[in-house]
Amino acid sequence: MLVAVLGATMVVPMFMDVYDGNGHWQVFALSALLTCSTGGSIALACANATSRGLTIQQTFLLTTAVWAVLPVFAALPLMFGATQSTVVDGFFEALSALTTTGATVLSGLDDLPRGLLLWRSMLQWFGGVGIIVVGMVFLPELRVGGMQIFRTEAFDTRGKILPKAAEIAKSIANIYVGLTLMCLVAFLAVGMPVFDAINHALTTLSTGGFSTHDASFGAFSGTPEYVASLFMILASLPFVRFVQMVAGSSRPLFHDQQVRGFMKVTIVLIVALTLHRFFVAGEHFEVSLREAVFNVTSILSGTGFASADYQLWGSFSVTLFFFMGLIGGCAGSTCCSVKIFRFQLLFASIKTQIRKIHYPHGVFTPQYEGRPVPEEVMSSVMAFFVMFLVILGVLSGLLGLTGLDFVTSVSGAATALANIGPGLGDEIGPAGNFANINDTAKWLLMAGMLIGRLEVMTVLVLFSINFWRG
Amino acid sequence: MLVAVLGATMVVPMFMDVYDGNGHWQVFALSALLTCSTGGSIALACANATSRGLTIQQTFLLTTAVWAVLPVFAALPLMFGATQSTVVDGFFEALSALTTTGATVLSGLDDLPRGLLLWRSMLQWFGGVGIIVVGMVFLPELRVGGMQIFRTEAFDTRGKILPKAAEIAKSIANIYVGLTLMCLVAFLAVGMPVFDAINHALTTLSTGGFSTHDASFGAFSGTPEYVASLFMILASLPFVRFVQMVAGSSRPLFHDQQVRGFMKVTIVLIVALTLHRFFVAGEHFEVSLREAVFNVTSILSGTGFASADYQLWGSFSVTLFFFMGLIGGCAGSTCCSVKIFRFQLLFASIKTQIRKIHYPHGVFTPQYEGRPVPEEVMSSVMAFFVMFLVILGVLSGLLGLTGLDFVTSVSGAATALANIGPGLGDEIGPAGNFANINDTAKWLLMAGMLIGRLEVMTVLVLFSINFWRG
Repeated sequence: MLVAVLGATMVVPMFMDVYDGNGHWQVFALSALLTCSTGGSIALACANATSRGLTIQQTFLLTTAVWAVLPVFAALPLMFGATQSTVVDGFFEALSALTTTGATVLSGLDDLPRGLLLWRSMLQWFGGVGIIVVGMVFLPELRVGGMQIFRTEAFDTRGKILPKAAEIAKSIANIYVGLTLMCLVAFLAVGMPVFDAINHALTTLSTGGFSTHDASFGAFSGTPEYVASLFMILASLPFVRFVQMVAGSSRPLFHDQQVRGFMKVTIVLIVALTLHRFFVAGEHFEVSLREAVFNVTSILSGTGFASADYQLWGSFSVTLFFFMGLIGGCAGSTCCSVKIFRFQLLFASIKTQIRKIHYPHGVFTPQYEGRPVPEEVMSSVMAFFVMFLVILGVLSGLLGLTGLDFVTSVSGAATALANIGPGLGDEIGPAGNFANINDTAKWLLMAGMLIGRLEVMTVLVLFSINFWRG
Repeated sequence: MLVAVLGATMVVPMFMDVYDGNGHWQVFALSALLTCSTGGSIALACANATSRGLTIQQTFLLTTAVWAVLPVFAALPLMFGATQSTVVDGFFEALSALTTTGATVLSGLDDLPRGLLLWRSMLQWFGGVGIIVVGMVFLPELRVGGMQIFRTEAFDTRGKILPKAAEIAKSIANIYVGLTLMCLVAFLAVGMPVFDAINHALTTLSTGGFSTHDASFGAFSGTPEYVASLFMILASLPFVRFVQMVAGSSRPLFHDQQVRGFMKVTIVLIVALTLHRFFVAGEHFEVSLREAVFNVTSILSGTGFASADYQLWGSFSVTLFFFMGLIGGCAGSTCCSVKIFRFQLLFASIKTQIRKIHYPHGVFTPQYEGRPVPEEVMSSVMAFFVMFLVILGVLSGLLGLTGLDFVTSVSGAATALANIGPGLGDEIGPAGNFANINDTAKWLLMAGMLIGRLEVMTVLVLFSINFWRG
């Protein structure tokens, strides 16, 4: 069904190309036909199956399959179209889009048919709303990575996961569309051309980071950077709080522990980097501030827009940006990476540990949002954290084995797992792109994107023997 | 008392220099006098204090103070002597020795007075036996980093921590001396000169890694590398198992879960690297095997001897060596870093998590050595793991701020925290040394060594408000 729907959305870029009169619309027509017919016929073939809801195992498989199968079809326009991508490149670009990573193998973006550019942006936007729904409905239900802490009364699915998903998706979609439109208007207001504004609104709200220009946001220096930063921050907050806000209560948003933590981290990093740029590098103050605001929000939220090559800002910035990418935004947003709430839970547990060291016979329980954290959540968060880092290590080693240098391997593994976009080094850094790395490395990075996007454990359980035994 | 004892040991290198007739012995005589008189007078001044045992807080303070204060005195011969070290360099070298890190700021080792070389090796050897005792008595008692899992009946201190420490130290010291002598004999047997054999035996058993030559083990290519590898492996195993073995029971050693895990990891890494060197780099098989065996055991155990610049072996090796250093050896040995048992506990917990995902209503408890792991141990291990990585990130950032490049910052932070020795990059890599990095960076690295050596939390609790309130 989702494949068929994806195919249907291909008419949007098709009309774009028809409007431009560039003949490239046929690519989308063909891709749409292929996608809709494949998806449609499979859906029809299974239409008679008696629906009895999803088992836990099926839910895991479905979640992973969505992000593994959709890119196959999403890649068709890239392979048939002006970019003439190879299979690996097309799949890489599509998966990078749908996971909202934003790492690209394409260059010469400015000269591509506009339909193709729009298609890339749309994919990120779909991926963004998709992951919010998965993060709010599926992952808490599956008890993955401590997300079960967000299994509140209001969103309790009581086994009826699909109807609930549709209901939540609807309220989230309203917010998501609303914020995207606001972002679009704001971009237009600061003078961005209409087509660029549409694309960047789509890729900002999804914290995806694809651009319509090779220079990324370098093409829109100045006020647009502040606008983008504002919306990247909004896109990093838990969307359920916006739903509550629209329903009349803004208190949950401002009192959310994740939101407060995220804002603190953002401000500290922006201040540190601004001061460093201003005092150490002797840069103009407004430039220091703007570049710090834009690049910090871009990497912290995992968007991955670049407005400057921060690798030229000295080693402090490089190291800072590397570790910043491993923090991430809030759960329930389009952000990936470790995420604020996990650090908060881990630090809460460490605080408890230290108190226990002082008072060996005292009983202390870590707290989150004023409530004690169940042990199950704690160990779930820990499992996520450990596996995230173990996979980071293994992936780096494998990338090294394909011949990438140390910095490219480690930062490539990190940027894929955390769904950011740019890595470090000349090749995959903010000024480079992923076109010239070898195919094996591309497949490895894709595996990283998928594992990271689905919060690690969702994918890993598929490899456990118990899974297939049940 | 310990300061006075340290002063007394300075007569050994003094006699070495007297024997060599090089006049450098006066340096040690002066240092010994200063050290003994300072330590002795403080000890005497406090001799009347009624001993009532140590409180938890005092134990924490004592443990950290030992490793912070001893290097001040241990550095005297380096500052007064032939090396004419600055305060920061002297302290760096002494702390690096006592923490068994093995990062050096000295070069031209081959031309130094032999007394000074012997002093460096002795410091590592003292540091090694010191940390085994701390790891077996103090840390389990302090419930630091999950070490309380090694709080067995046999070693239960029941509050009498100092008498117990002396008793354990005695049985451990016998093993430690015995293994060092065996290592010495083995080095002599394969043709190493007497003085080199003594020094390398001292720094092998302590997994310290100081050498008497700038070329490190490059000066002893061939069979000595295999001998060193064997003893580095032995030094990475839990010493309590050797005590049991000498008492007649070798079963505990071979059935120890840590020992088995460590051997598996070692073998896998050696095989991987040998095959890579043999097939990819086209190196001679015996050379591939020997270099892999030696360098893997050297980095995994945190010794840090170098026999070749593995940075020239391609990016796979570099990445592999970086992450290998974060694994470490067994608890209860002279090794530092995360350590095998913590990974085993974390993986046991993750396995439990995955089973819980499949059977949400089942009750599963992670097991270690066939027994269920108390929740307190699990969260203690997790606290260690998280703080280890957070400090790695913060330290890298601060090192970057002092102007070191990304690879030097990150690998420098890792090599200090994990007490390995060499980092990566031209400057601090296996072929370089720490002399030319800036003083601020040296202080930061020293902080890293101390924090890493004392299992992170021992030092961190000193910074908690509760600590000083009690």
